[in-house]
Amino acid sequence: MHNASSIADCRGTPRVFEDPRLLRHAVVEAQRQGAKVGLVPTMGALHEGHLSLVDACRSACDVTVASIFVNPTQFGPREDLASYPRSLPRDLQLLAERGCQLAFVPEAESMYGPRHDTYVDVGAAARGWEGAIRPTHFRGVATVVLKLFHIIPADCAFFGQKDYQQTVVVKQMAADLDVPIEIRVLPTVRESDGLAMSSRNAYLTPDQRAVAPRLWESLQLAQSLFDAGVRDADRIQRAMQASLAAEPQLELQYVACFAEGTLCEVERLDAPTIVALAARLGATRLIDNHRLA
Amino acid sequence: MHNASSIADCRGTPRVFEDPRLLRHAVVEAQRQGAKVGLVPTMGALHEGHLSLVDACRSACDVTVASIFVNPTQFGPREDLASYPRSLPRDLQLLAERGCQLAFVPEAESMYGPRHDTYVDVGAAARGWEGAIRPTHFRGVATVVLKLFHIIPADCAFFGQKDYQQTVVVKQMAADLDVPIEIRVLPTVRESDGLAMSSRNAYLTPDQRAVAPRLWESLQLAQSLFDAGVRDADRIQRAMQASLAAEPQLELQYVACFAEGTLCEVERLDAPTIVALAARLGATRLIDNHRLA
Repeated sequence: MHNASSIADCRGTPRVFEDPRLLRHAVVEAQRQGAKVGLVPTMGALHEGHLSLVDACRSACDVTVASIFVNPTQFGPREDLASYPRSLPRDLQLLAERGCQLAFVPEAESMYGPRHDTYVDVGAAARGWEGAIRPTHFRGVATVVLKLFHIIPADCAFFGQKDYQQTVVVKQMAADLDVPIEIRVLPTVRESDGLAMSSRNAYLTPDQRAVAPRLWESLQLAQSLFDAGVRDADRIQRAMQASLAAEPQLELQYVACFAEGTLCEVERLDAPTIVALAARLGATRLIDNHRLA
Repeated sequence: MHNASSIADCRGTPRVFEDPRLLRHAVVEAQRQGAKVGLVPTMGALHEGHLSLVDACRSACDVTVASIFVNPTQFGPREDLASYPRSLPRDLQLLAERGCQLAFVPEAESMYGPRHDTYVDVGAAARGWEGAIRPTHFRGVATVVLKLFHIIPADCAFFGQKDYQQTVVVKQMAADLDVPIEIRVLPTVRESDGLAMSSRNAYLTPDQRAVAPRLWESLQLAQSLFDAGVRDADRIQRAMQASLAAEPQLELQYVACFAEGTLCEVERLDAPTIVALAARLGATRLIDNHRLA
C-alpha cells in the first residue's frame, strides 16, 4: 500500500483501481495519514472541462481521485448509452498529465449487481427541465454519485457548472442526506468560439458544429440585455428564443431563468440568476447556462 | 475533545450530542485514534431488545453510539408519531448503565430542514408486507438510517431481528449504495411469556397484553410442525392462522414464510426460512418472526 505522501508524489500515471474496496482502502489510508482527498466524478471522454476540475482538485487537495464510469442508470432507454464516447487509454494519459493520482474505472457489473434495487430520489429539483425530458436521469445521477461518495469518501468533490441542474441536485442530496463531502462547482470551460465543452460535442457533424456556438451567443445576448438594465426574465427569454429561432437546425427545448442555486424560476432578475437552455441539434442534445448578476 | 481512550473509558453517562457535526467530529476523531465505532439506531423508549444491541456493540467495538430519534418520515399520516412513547431521561440512564459512551438525540428540525426533499427508495424489498400496509415507512427508514450513517460513520451498526423486513431493507440499501458499514442483526429479545419486546407494547391494555403472547405461541406452533417434519409453507401458515383465529381480539394481517435474508416467499421449507407475521390488537400493530432451519 502506498502511503499518503507516496500517493501525493506519484507522477506520470494514476494508479488505476477497478475494485471499489481496494480504492476505498487506499483513500481511507491516505486520509488517516493526514491527506486531504478530492474526487472528480466523470463519465470519461475527458475534455478541458473535466481537466479544469482535476486542476482545481489538485490545488485544493493532497490526493486527487478521478472516476471514469459511464453510468447506465442515468441514461434513458432511448438515449445514447451504447454510443457514448469511450476513450480510456487517452483519458488515463490526460489524467496523468494533470497529476491525478488515483483513477477509479469500475466495470458496470461491480457497480450494479444483479439484485441492485436502491435509488436516491432528490424530489422537486430533479423533476423539471432536464428531469422532465429525461425522467430517470437525476435518479441515476444521484444514486451513482452517492455510491461514488461511499466508495471514495473524499473531503470534497468537484462538478462543472455546465450541468447546472446536476449541481443543484447533487447539492440538495448532499445536504438532505448529511453527506460529509464539500461540493464544489467550477466554471464551464468553452471552446474558442464559446461552445461549452461537452463529451457529446463529438456527435456533431461539421455543419452542426458550426451552428452550435449560437447557444452561447444567445446567452451572451442575455448578458447584453442584462447589462443594458433589462431585469424582466420573460423579455430576456423571448429575445434568446428569437435569436435561436433564426437557426433552423436548432430545436430549442427550454430557456429559463433560475434563482441562483435553485430550479425556481424568477420573473425579475433582482438577484443572481442562472439563465439555462437546452436544444437539440440533429440527434444531439446540448445544454448550457450563464450567470447574470 | 475527548480522545478515543477517554471516550472508551467514560462510564456513568453517555456524552449527549444534539448537533450532527459535533458528533461526527467526535466519531471521526475516535476512529483516527484507532477506535472501532458501533452504532445502535433507536427511536428511544428503550427496552431490553435495544439494550441487547448496546451490549453487542460494546462487545464488538471500542466506542458505542446510540441514536435516539423518533423519525417522522417513517410514520404514515394516520400512525402514532404523536403518541409514540418518549422517555429521554430514562433512556439516557439505561444507556449509561449499559456503558454506551455517546448518545445522539437530535431535534427533528436539525434532521429535516424545511427544504428536505431527498429520499432513499429500496425497491421491491420495501414494497410488500409492512411496506404494503405502511406505504412510505421503509422510504423513511432507509432515508434516516442513511443520514445516521453519514453523521455517525461507524464501523458497524446493530439492528434487531424483530423488525425482519427492516433488516432486509437496510442490508439491501447498504449493499446497493456501497455503504461502508457492516450491518449486524441480533436476536429478538422476548418477555418471559414470549412476547417480542417492542416500545409499542406499552400501548396494550392489560387485557390485550394477556392476549399478545398468542403471536409467539403461533410461531412456536410453526416450530413444532417443522420439528415434526412439515416442510409445506401453506400448511404451516394455515395452522398458525387457525390458532390465531381462536383469539377474537387479534386481527391477523399477514403470515408468510420467506427465504432467509429476503422477502421472497417460499412454498417449501427446504432451506432456512423466516416465518413472519403482523397483527392488530385493538389499535396496536404487533409484528414478530421466527427462524425455522
